[in-house]
Amino acid sequence: MTTLVTGAAGFLGRALVARLQAAAAPLDRLRLLDRVAASATDAEILVGDLADLAVLEAALDGVDRVFHLAALPGGAAEAGYAASLRVNLQASLDLFEHLAARTRPARLVYASSIAVFGAPLPEAGIDDETPARPSMTYGAHKLMVETALANLTRLGRIGGVALRLPGLVARPSDGAGLKSAFMSQVFHTLAAGEAYALPVGPDATMWLMSVQAAARALIHAADLPTLPRAAFTAPALRVSAGDLVAEISRQARGDPGLVTYDPDPVLEAQFGRLPPLFTPAADGLGFVHDGDLSSLVSTTLASLRKTTP
Amino acid sequence: MTTLVTGAAGFLGRALVARLQAAAAPLDRLRLLDRVAASATDAEILVGDLADLAVLEAALDGVDRVFHLAALPGGAAEAGYAASLRVNLQASLDLFEHLAARTRPARLVYASSIAVFGAPLPEAGIDDETPARPSMTYGAHKLMVETALANLTRLGRIGGVALRLPGLVARPSDGAGLKSAFMSQVFHTLAAGEAYALPVGPDATMWLMSVQAAARALIHAADLPTLPRAAFTAPALRVSAGDLVAEISRQARGDPGLVTYDPDPVLEAQFGRLPPLFTPAADGLGFVHDGDLSSLVSTTLASLRKTTP
Repeated sequence: MTTLVTGAAGFLGRALVARLQAAAAPLDRLRLLDRVAASATDAEILVGDLADLAVLEAALDGVDRVFHLAALPGGAAEAGYAASLRVNLQASLDLFEHLAARTRPARLVYASSIAVFGAPLPEAGIDDETPARPSMTYGAHKLMVETALANLTRLGRIGGVALRLPGLVARPSDGAGLKSAFMSQVFHTLAAGEAYALPVGPDATMWLMSVQAAARALIHAADLPTLPRAAFTAPALRVSAGDLVAEISRQARGDPGLVTYDPDPVLEAQFGRLPPLFTPAADGLGFVHDGDLSSLVSTTLASLRKTTP
Repeated sequence: MTTLVTGAAGFLGRALVARLQAAAAPLDRLRLLDRVAASATDAEILVGDLADLAVLEAALDGVDRVFHLAALPGGAAEAGYAASLRVNLQASLDLFEHLAARTRPARLVYASSIAVFGAPLPEAGIDDETPARPSMTYGAHKLMVETALANLTRLGRIGGVALRLPGLVARPSDGAGLKSAFMSQVFHTLAAGEAYALPVGPDATMWLMSVQAAARALIHAADLPTLPRAAFTAPALRVSAGDLVAEISRQARGDPGLVTYDPDPVLEAQFGRLPPLFTPAADGLGFVHDGDLSSLVSTTLASLRKTTP
């Protein structure tokens, strides 16, 4: 089996590739596409832009399944509409059309986002019946791509499933255009014993998932025997900023006093007012989050220690 | 003010153009685009395919508002995925991008469809909070276009509104790829005193609107002073097939016995099991349906008499 991962050099891509390689059977082949070279052994590395037709065709040649992760992140998409239109929307639609032209449908897992729901979210919570009303370009394009994938899956031309992922931690502190970067930044700074001003208050609530749990969920989506519905919201832990700071400090033996709160109302409204999350469809299919806050923090701190020189 | 109507030679386009011309101010200009020449005096007639870039640019040159109606209908879109992709999706997205490049945002009214909700619909009914889960290519592409329009409207680059229209009567009996043609066919045959086998049972329920009421609603959408939300489901009358047959027969002095019922389960599941419809958002903005079944039938029969030679 040949598996293609797009966006393989990104934060989620690297965690997914590590997990795929750990579980690979002897004849499994892995092809990794990104705009910069993904670093992995025993894999075919493709460097290029998915929006380039030649790159797209080379990437899809002979693949049996695809994890489509490549995307311009939320903040960058909002600042650069034209780039999001080209990459997040059009390149994804082109990828699907190329795949749909196959005689044998390929399995495709699409990394979608809770950004499809927009903001503000209903206070009573989000469930599988909540209408998607994106309020940023990133979420709008994710929803459009989800819709295209669901339709091609219904037509039997792709075996597609879109997984709506929450905030993933702990992203590298490279400022890659993510407005929600503070959720990761608090891990980095507390682990390093540095001061940090959180742009949300201690009562702010977020939906979080470790990148390891997200990678596991993507693989679970690829392995589902049937696809009863084309888009799922992944389960996530709902945690407050204050509880998160306390737990990271406890495990990292850091000083919670290093964190101060300097709420940015716009940012908090978008990323810090997340209501209860109910994901019965995904739960019923065996998708799981990190379990509890302690596990999420320990998993995340352990992976920071591995990647920090 | 220059107004462009795409799909101007179609069933809804003709009704809209008639109404626009009746209400036009002296300096208003009307441009009518379709693949066949729209027949109208005092209007600029463009013949061409919206998916042709040169046609698109000529059509949009200098327009202040657009009614975007051009689309491959549901049955044809389902039978011809590639054509729907090109016309219903891509040409619509291209139209929006061209319009969004303007310095002054143009008002755009998009004729969307209740097909965005898919089938089967929840028995308790549809309201403004019902998630859209299209189950045909037509509805999927309409939803994607709605999503793109809402985002560009949010960004202030188009003043867009999408109106989700129900089944419109009475379409000409030209077999233009509409699976829901039976709703119109029953008007034509009863008015002509001909026998007709309805492909749904007498208890089948449909949401109907006369094409005149739909044209009125599109113009109302164009005239809204503000756009509090980018997509609305238009109000519609919910009627049973039996009641519809009885009322047409009464008004046309026809014999209801001319209609027999020969339900097609697949077709009935898709078009004949429509639950209660609640449209508070549109109601609050002054959108209205035909009022009652008697008015819907009299409006529709009157327009058949006008167009029948």
